[in-house]
Amino acid sequence: MSSFFSGLDPVRYDPEATGIAFRHYDADKVVMGKPLKDHLRFAVAYWHSFAADGSDPFGAGTFGRPWFGDSMEDARQKADAAFEMFRILGQPFFCFHDHDVRPETNDLRENHKRLNEIADIFETKMSETGTGLLWGTANLFTHPRFMAGGATNPDPEVFAWSASTVRSCLEVTHRLKGENYVLWGGREGYESLLNTDMAQDLDHYGRFLSMVVEHKHKIGFTGQILVEPKPQEPSKHQYDHDVATVYGFLRRYGLEDEVKVNVEQGHAILAGHSFEHEIALARDLGILGSIDMNRNDYQSGWDTDQFPNNVPEVALAYYEILKGGGLAPGGTNFDAKLRRQSIDAEDLIAAHAGAMDICARGLMAAARMFEDDALEAPRRDRYAGWSDELGRAIMAEDATLSGIADRAEADGLSPAPKSGRQEILENIVSRYV
Amino acid sequence: MSSFFSGLDPVRYDPEATGIAFRHYDADKVVMGKPLKDHLRFAVAYWHSFAADGSDPFGAGTFGRPWFGDSMEDARQKADAAFEMFRILGQPFFCFHDHDVRPETNDLRENHKRLNEIADIFETKMSETGTGLLWGTANLFTHPRFMAGGATNPDPEVFAWSASTVRSCLEVTHRLKGENYVLWGGREGYESLLNTDMAQDLDHYGRFLSMVVEHKHKIGFTGQILVEPKPQEPSKHQYDHDVATVYGFLRRYGLEDEVKVNVEQGHAILAGHSFEHEIALARDLGILGSIDMNRNDYQSGWDTDQFPNNVPEVALAYYEILKGGGLAPGGTNFDAKLRRQSIDAEDLIAAHAGAMDICARGLMAAARMFEDDALEAPRRDRYAGWSDELGRAIMAEDATLSGIADRAEADGLSPAPKSGRQEILENIVSRYV
Amino acid sequence: MSSFFSGLDPVRYDPEATGIAFRHYDADKVVMGKPLKDHLRFAVAYWHSFAADGSDPFGAGTFGRPWFGDSMEDARQKADAAFEMFRILGQPFFCFHDHDVRPETNDLRENHKRLNEIADIFETKMSETGTGLLWGTANLFTHPRFMAGGATNPDPEVFAWSASTVRSCLEVTHRLKGENYVLWGGREGYESLLNTDMAQDLDHYGRFLSMVVEHKHKIGFTGQILVEPKPQEPSKHQYDHDVATVYGFLRRYGLEDEVKVNVEQGHAILAGHSFEHEIALARDLGILGSIDMNRNDYQSGWDTDQFPNNVPEVALAYYEILKGGGLAPGGTNFDAKLRRQSIDAEDLIAAHAGAMDICARGLMAAARMFEDDALEAPRRDRYAGWSDELGRAIMAEDATLSGIADRAEADGLSPAPKSGRQEILENIVSRYV
Amino acid sequence: MSSFFSGLDPVRYDPEATGIAFRHYDADKVVMGKPLKDHLRFAVAYWHSFAADGSDPFGAGTFGRPWFGDSMEDARQKADAAFEMFRILGQPFFCFHDHDVRPETNDLRENHKRLNEIADIFETKMSETGTGLLWGTANLFTHPRFMAGGATNPDPEVFAWSASTVRSCLEVTHRLKGENYVLWGGREGYESLLNTDMAQDLDHYGRFLSMVVEHKHKIGFTGQILVEPKPQEPSKHQYDHDVATVYGFLRRYGLEDEVKVNVEQGHAILAGHSFEHEIALARDLGILGSIDMNRNDYQSGWDTDQFPNNVPEVALAYYEILKGGGLAPGGTNFDAKLRRQSIDAEDLIAAHAGAMDICARGLMAAARMFEDDALEAPRRDRYAGWSDELGRAIMAEDATLSGIADRAEADGLSPAPKSGRQEILENIVSRYV
Repeated sequence: MSSFFSGLDPVRYDPEATGIAFRHYDADKVVMGKPLKDHLRFAVAYWHSFAADGSDPFGAGTFGRPWFGDSMEDARQKADAAFEMFRILGQPFFCFHDHDVRPETNDLRENHKRLNEIADIFETKMSETGTGLLWGTANLFTHPRFMAGGATNPDPEVFAWSASTVRSCLEVTHRLKGENYVLWGGREGYESLLNTDMAQDLDHYGRFLSMVVEHKHKIGFTGQILVEPKPQEPSKHQYDHDVATVYGFLRRYGLEDEVKVNVEQGHAILAGHSFEHEIALARDLGILGSIDMNRNDYQSGWDTDQFPNNVPEVALAYYEILKGGGLAPGGTNFDAKLRRQSIDAEDLIAAHAGAMDICARGLMAAARMFEDDALEAPRRDRYAGWSDELGRAIMAEDATLSGIADRAEADGLSPAPKSGRQEILENIVSRYV
Repeated sequence: MSSFFSGLDPVRYDPEATGIAFRHYDADKVVMGKPLKDHLRFAVAYWHSFAADGSDPFGAGTFGRPWFGDSMEDARQKADAAFEMFRILGQPFFCFHDHDVRPETNDLRENHKRLNEIADIFETKMSETGTGLLWGTANLFTHPRFMAGGATNPDPEVFAWSASTVRSCLEVTHRLKGENYVLWGGREGYESLLNTDMAQDLDHYGRFLSMVVEHKHKIGFTGQILVEPKPQEPSKHQYDHDVATVYGFLRRYGLEDEVKVNVEQGHAILAGHSFEHEIALARDLGILGSIDMNRNDYQSGWDTDQFPNNVPEVALAYYEILKGGGLAPGGTNFDAKLRRQSIDAEDLIAAHAGAMDICARGLMAAARMFEDDALEAPRRDRYAGWSDELGRAIMAEDATLSGIADRAEADGLSPAPKSGRQEILENIVSRYV
Repeated sequence: MSSFFSGLDPVRYDPEATGIAFRHYDADKVVMGKPLKDHLRFAVAYWHSFAADGSDPFGAGTFGRPWFGDSMEDARQKADAAFEMFRILGQPFFCFHDHDVRPETNDLRENHKRLNEIADIFETKMSETGTGLLWGTANLFTHPRFMAGGATNPDPEVFAWSASTVRSCLEVTHRLKGENYVLWGGREGYESLLNTDMAQDLDHYGRFLSMVVEHKHKIGFTGQILVEPKPQEPSKHQYDHDVATVYGFLRRYGLEDEVKVNVEQGHAILAGHSFEHEIALARDLGILGSIDMNRNDYQSGWDTDQFPNNVPEVALAYYEILKGGGLAPGGTNFDAKLRRQSIDAEDLIAAHAGAMDICARGLMAAARMFEDDALEAPRRDRYAGWSDELGRAIMAEDATLSGIADRAEADGLSPAPKSGRQEILENIVSRYV
Repeated sequence: MSSFFSGLDPVRYDPEATGIAFRHYDADKVVMGKPLKDHLRFAVAYWHSFAADGSDPFGAGTFGRPWFGDSMEDARQKADAAFEMFRILGQPFFCFHDHDVRPETNDLRENHKRLNEIADIFETKMSETGTGLLWGTANLFTHPRFMAGGATNPDPEVFAWSASTVRSCLEVTHRLKGENYVLWGGREGYESLLNTDMAQDLDHYGRFLSMVVEHKHKIGFTGQILVEPKPQEPSKHQYDHDVATVYGFLRRYGLEDEVKVNVEQGHAILAGHSFEHEIALARDLGILGSIDMNRNDYQSGWDTDQFPNNVPEVALAYYEILKGGGLAPGGTNFDAKLRRQSIDAEDLIAAHAGAMDICARGLMAAARMFEDDALEAPRRDRYAGWSDELGRAIMAEDATLSGIADRAEADGLSPAPKSGRQEILENIVSRYV
């Protein structure tokens, strides 16, 4: 067993604790008919927690974990540490890329073999700890071969390499009973339009995604296939810009019933949207799959991936999720990394525990708002006209512009503005958070 | 005739002029087989040039034009001044909203009657001056009745009012031989998600647009119907966020073959895109309709609508347009306003003349790049692999993930990165601008 | 008495209320030895609440208050409504510009006469209601004469006009026992560097501010003179960009002991800072004067001036204020406006009441953190080395680079990184908010 | 001699060349009485060109240069390659950090010894090639010991380490006849205000800078000491935010006559300013020292450090420099890096050659504008009133608010707005670029 976390006890629910504890996240507490753990479905991200080294564009790694290295033995030590942390946190899920869990080579078959060796270890440990796999994914962005894209690389050999890699990761996800499979296309975009053929790239990307969907069915994987929107970084422009862009893309390639989105707070912010907007839009378009819960610094123009710490914001996100019927089979993945000055093992535990508490507070506040009909009653009232005669006439199948225009003119309509009551609604929310 | 522009002569092409002149825009100069005027298809925006008063959120109007007022007589004086400016500039087109050209009332029929009275005047003046109508549009955002939206207002009466207004504007556009009809949905969005039903709003908006298309066909209007993307301002979120969002929306409501986009530089910037990106994307998705040429201050977070003044940027925009076969039946509308300190008649003429020169320089540079195959040759070379055996196999109809993955593994693929040569391509562009 | 707010009762502290009430702001509750009202020192902004009409750059006014108009009678009605609202809210202060309270003319003496007439009314009403004046100010940005600046206008006549106007406003502030006088230089900046002489402008601005200080002493005004930083909007660049810029400006013109800053949340955000940063910096530089409490939409690039609704953020702002010894003689001015769809009298009351509650919650949380030494103890610990021998040696008066370098080399220093514990500190804050 | 650039010939001035060449930069061409090379004073940045590996936050290094490694032998090979590139480009200067040129250890004396060994090599090569040192600097941000700052680290041992390092770098800069010494404080700021004592940090930073100045005089270094403003990244907040912030800091610690600024385009953009603004402000405040010429992507929120490619923008920057009398002893340092897909030796040469051409075009356009008085004549005209009686009265030493106010009132002033003519001035600039 890893000694990295030695001295750190399992985190318990204890509202009166003085040290690291859950002050709000009582996993089995029933809210709206379901235990919190089944609402929130927390997952730890293997990459940020165990593979990231604390480097940034101007600084070297600061974390120096004992398992850092290029050998399979390092990878096994890393797995030990990871499951030790899962035991301490008790969260139900984790997520990983192939790249996070084992060293890579330039040989596809060797890469797959190594991945499966680690998967063997995971299988055992998952069974021992009860930790499930929320999703698996392939890293198609770190290695220089992906510098101009994976599926959208001008070189079709990189597409083929990516196909082999994703097949391997999808199959491993399947055997580990992963509930979702995610594709984040950090390099599926461009750095300069001058050397890019966007029309071709989109067709290649559509083809790639269609192949993944076909393979999923072939192997009997019943989890969701998810795309993760992000507008840019590392690419100057990423094809999966935001939820609306992904939706149009899925429609274009006939994939809207097969693929959903994994929405991340930080990516929403970078795209100029609130997190709750992206969640609500995905829900309304029928493609909400899962969420990455983190926080971006609003004053920084890059992906800061911080742990969430603002209950009012988190509550609005979970509210939109509850309105859509919840997250399952998706979940709440902490795609959040320690600040590079937070170098201690304790920081890693405390950051996750604090984030789980923030989410629990947000979810419980959202549930109360929902149960009280606090926001939906005024919303229904505001749109009531659309259930009345004129509203129904407009939405009737045979309605025409002339028909509605004639009617408006004949009736001498002159609609009066009604208050939108935004501040009053914000006050209502404030009572719950 | 208006005396507002007295003392200002028609602007002539004269590279050696010392005063206001076209130093580059030689309207009849043939480039790539077409006169410049037919490539650029310039239009003046009635609103910014004749209706705007120079106010901003912290300041009152500064322009004080003699035709400012609420009477039909003011509206006629305004038309005189407008066509006097068109005579001076000699640009082939103009664009207008109903709201710009005549005073409004709370009576739909009176509004339509007044609009048609002004249209009578326009018809005569257009015939006299040879100025065409690039597009007409309805203002569904200024009056308080639209404060919560036009087609997406929670009150269906506002939808009905909007239907009547758009019918009237579309029909006037039709009789003035407008080549396009534009919808800019500045209030089709929300200020707060708390009081908004996005799913309903989108359905109402889809219905509205479908009705407009149906009516267009009913009356025999053969121009393009265009939506104008903008991410926000005045709304916190606008449903026509950017080109990709509009595309998804059109697909959702089955309108992708009926409706195109009018792309604006400033709106692209606000959405986090370059202008050339939005143009290229619209072109590649088959929905490029027309452009609004202006410039946003990159350091200001609102729509500054300045006249263009940067040839290298404008050249990249026209390059993407030339690749798509040109703008017609769309055009280059100057959706640009004078700075509020630029209060003289001369400023209005000089700003347009300078902008037309900038566009002419950009278009001519783009045409030379295109004719020299300066960017397309390296681009084809970069993507050559997709025409080779592996590329064709991937895109073959029966290709599968497993098939491509097996092949990659069997061949022991290990693709090597190749230079993207971005700086070299930028240097090539620099030689042309 | 104004009937505008009829039916709206005085807002009371009642944690269990169902309608508009203070659920947290118990004005007389003692925290850290002082009643909440003396910590928070709330002020209503006359301009947003009574003069703004709900217009935005794309829309006409929506509020249509009964007192809108250009006569002195309208101004008196407005004053009635204002003090009626002050009675309902019970906040201790208000703030105003000359422009908000009386109609303006092009005659300076007439303007001053009118201002004094309204001041007579204010004097009576203030005495009746017990409402004080937190600060007065002059509007040097709305009228077209200010389009190129007030004190920094290229035309010295505008400087002279501004001098007369500020003298009048400062003297009225003095006789109304205002505790501060504020200058917000929305037009003291430039729209284009091409027509600007920044060196001259800064000298003119320095001169203006020096004159105001000299006049303050001459008339015996003992309140604070405050400059309000904002980076831009309406100007492309404003000379009072942020707290650090204002500090440098004050030092340059020898005013750092005479002038302080009024820090606004929305302006901080636009400048790329957090509110708490600007407050802490002003405090550490000795120039913290007062605050404007509002909220900017992080996804909008202009000044949205919304009522605050996020307790965790507000708590951090008040924390920095408490560390500095509190706000007095400054206060918490709500420089916040209703959304333009919030057109009802009730919206105005509810928005302020909700905002006062948010501030009270934030202040109380901050006070608990402060009393518990929850953040200061770890901070002191982190910097403890600077009280030890090496730290003292570095800061000793005769320390030199060589002396410290020699010592570091001789001692073979190789400092080890220590955790910054950011997430743990954020968790601590979360327990309090 | 390094073979890395083999096959790449020295870049020559040849307007008609088809390959890599200077099409505009004719080093000895005399403009405004000085050869271009003496106006522009180009420098290559050692770090981006020879030490950067093409990694980004989501991807590994792509450049794989033959000299990458940790040995002194690698460092010597790197120096060979660098001076080979200097020979090919023929630019007069280079710049470096200690960290770029030799491997580091945890032993200060060993670090200094190694630095001096490389400096010996540089000395020989500089003499052979005629390449000068524009500036030297110390890297106080990459190593984990600096994660919480160099001079502003909570641990005074890091301050001491930094003092020793800067002494060593300053002395090496001195012996290599460097014309400037730069301090960029990428970590002199904070990641979280929660664990930061800003007041102490600023005092420590002021002390550090004062020590550097004192040591400069002690050793007889006559070059400029420069601070490089940047608002953030890697820090959330950097104390050297922008030019105005640095100015206030220098005034606070009495350093305004001793320290100047090195202004970078990308940093200006990140701070919300145009490059020309920062240059003009530094010039007007008397602290313009040197420039870093690069380009930030306006749509990306981080420091993209691209090679300049927009002549109109570059011309405005050099215009402000020419107005201030030129750059010397500062220069134009290309703090620009290849895109990570640009992996070939040719890319490195072409990027610099293209950038030098862009700068030459910009400088020559600026010089023509300046010689023609094209912008200064209208500017003087606009401010003419300040030379007239009223303007002089306002700026007279004994002027008071009352004096000016009385006069304005007595004269019945009512100043009329005059056009700011921004578009006309922009048109004038367009004729030159």
